[in-house]
Amino acid sequence: MRKILLIGIGPGDPDYLTVQAINALNRADVFFIPDKGAEKAELRQLREQICKRFITNADYRTVTIDIPKRDAHPEDYQATVDDWHARIAERYQSVLTESLPDGGCGAFLVWGDPSLYDSTMRILDRLQAQGSDIAYEIIPGITAVQALTARHRIPLNRIGQSVTITTGRKLGAAGQLTDDTIVVLLDGDETFAKIDARDVSIYWGANLGMDDEILVAGKLDEVASEIQRVRREARSAKGWIMDAYLLRSDGNE
Amino acid sequence: MRKILLIGIGPGDPDYLTVQAINALNRADVFFIPDKGAEKAELRQLREQICKRFITNADYRTVTIDIPKRDAHPEDYQATVDDWHARIAERYQSVLTESLPDGGCGAFLVWGDPSLYDSTMRILDRLQAQGSDIAYEIIPGITAVQALTARHRIPLNRIGQSVTITTGRKLGAAGQLTDDTIVVLLDGDETFAKIDARDVSIYWGANLGMDDEILVAGKLDEVASEIQRVRREARSAKGWIMDAYLLRSDGNE
Ligand SMILES: C[S@@+](CC[C@H](N)C(=O)[O-])C[C@H]1O[C@@H](n2cnc3c(N)ncnc32)[C@H](O)[C@@H]1O
Ligand SMILES: C[S@@+](CC[C@H](N)C(=O)[O-])C[C@H]1O[C@@H](n2cnc3c(N)ncnc32)[C@H](O)[C@@H]1O
Repeated sequence: MRKILLIGIGPGDPDYLTVQAINALNRADVFFIPDKGAEKAELRQLREQICKRFITNADYRTVTIDIPKRDAHPEDYQATVDDWHARIAERYQSVLTESLPDGGCGAFLVWGDPSLYDSTMRILDRLQAQGSDIAYEIIPGITAVQALTARHRIPLNRIGQSVTITTGRKLGAAGQLTDDTIVVLLDGDETFAKIDARDVSIYWGANLGMDDEILVAGKLDEVASEIQRVRREARSAKGWIMDAYLLRSDGNE
Repeated sequence: MRKILLIGIGPGDPDYLTVQAINALNRADVFFIPDKGAEKAELRQLREQICKRFITNADYRTVTIDIPKRDAHPEDYQATVDDWHARIAERYQSVLTESLPDGGCGAFLVWGDPSLYDSTMRILDRLQAQGSDIAYEIIPGITAVQALTARHRIPLNRIGQSVTITTGRKLGAAGQLTDDTIVVLLDGDETFAKIDARDVSIYWGANLGMDDEILVAGKLDEVASEIQRVRREARSAKGWIMDAYLLRSDGNE
């Protein structure tokens, strides 16, 4: 049996790591670092910094897994993701068996929380379903959602109300708020600027918890173009950006 | 100016604390411990344990704030909560001014994450709006939602789909799933057993991260009565229970 730990590392600031995550880092012999290409070198470095800072056992190894690319704007999203996961699972299977002895313990440092818009768990489920001898454990981490509300100092929910967490793609398809409060991740298309913006407040954050964090908040129709400007500037400065936002209807409360 | 830190401590296991939370604990001179009555003595003790374990400065003080009771099943939920918050704000104002010198730093240890179904931030906003000289900072924490998905080892969302976080009250009013995935907190009424249960899976967890944690998962119509039985047993064992669950429609994927 091989043991894999999926360790949530939070969305950027190494201080977001929990005590449980630090303990888990110290249980693993091998760290698997998925490599999605050069543009995310900074994120790779951050993972390496986390290992250096928190692991007391100097013997650990890191093993890079090259992740195949997927179509960014596929026609059939579900099928494309499914095929992509199958290809990643193949890579994982061969790297895990090569680098981890039977009885060994490996770990993935998962951005934010491993449950939220992350495929690592699904890929390990796939390997298990194919008969692979791996068992895994999840160590929760701070999500981008919590970093966003903490940095803006806002509650996630209205009193007694619900909250929907969604993607830019889904928000774009709806074209408007589908709940009193909506948090949007995974929006490379500035969807906030394309929806019905009447009586909506936005709390937007980029690179939360990092040195180049940016926060903008206000009435959506008043600040949308400012956010677009700031976002494009920040994005071109280092080639990528991670941003998230909360939309709240101004109606009640 | 008085500084207040709202420190998310996670939903039960002290190992859920982040490095940032531990640093924040060590910045505060005074800890305010809201006291909601005897039945929650265990939760009070847990907060005291966290202080003992993580604070290196031995000089800190703890100050109890008696929290007025609120109507558990009010006719007008919003107005009752509003009135209750006003009374809590009064208590906070007098305790904060009495126990914290100008320039001092106090802290609240907030269960889970301070943004999610917690009123501490709203009460401080109220004090600020009334002209109180306090500034506050939010330290995010692991939520019950993340503890639930981590312990069940399930993703929060389906691939590319949204997730709604809601209360037992709202779920009961809807009578059915309003999203592909719904996470329900604050349900003292076993609402899961009262809704349309066809083709729905439930992942239920009580006292997550604590010694008496319980997990039950399955098809909702097959396990609902088992959850009710286990829940009542656990609840009567110590007089209270904290439970949460995720509901997922079995339709697609
Ligand atoms: C693939 S999802 C992973 C989410 C992650 N598992 C979590 O729990 O936060 C990546 C998306 O999360 C959001 N995100 C992650 N880290 C962020 C950060 N530091 N600042 C702003 N948004 C972030 C962005 O919306 C990004 O597109
Ligand atoms: C007032 S809300 C506070 C939520 C908290 N701020 C958080 O981030 O998890 C309390 C509700 O959270 C859920 N909860 C909190 N801790 C829990 C635990 N350890 N196990 C199960 N549910 C928990 C329960 O649904 C409970 O009714």
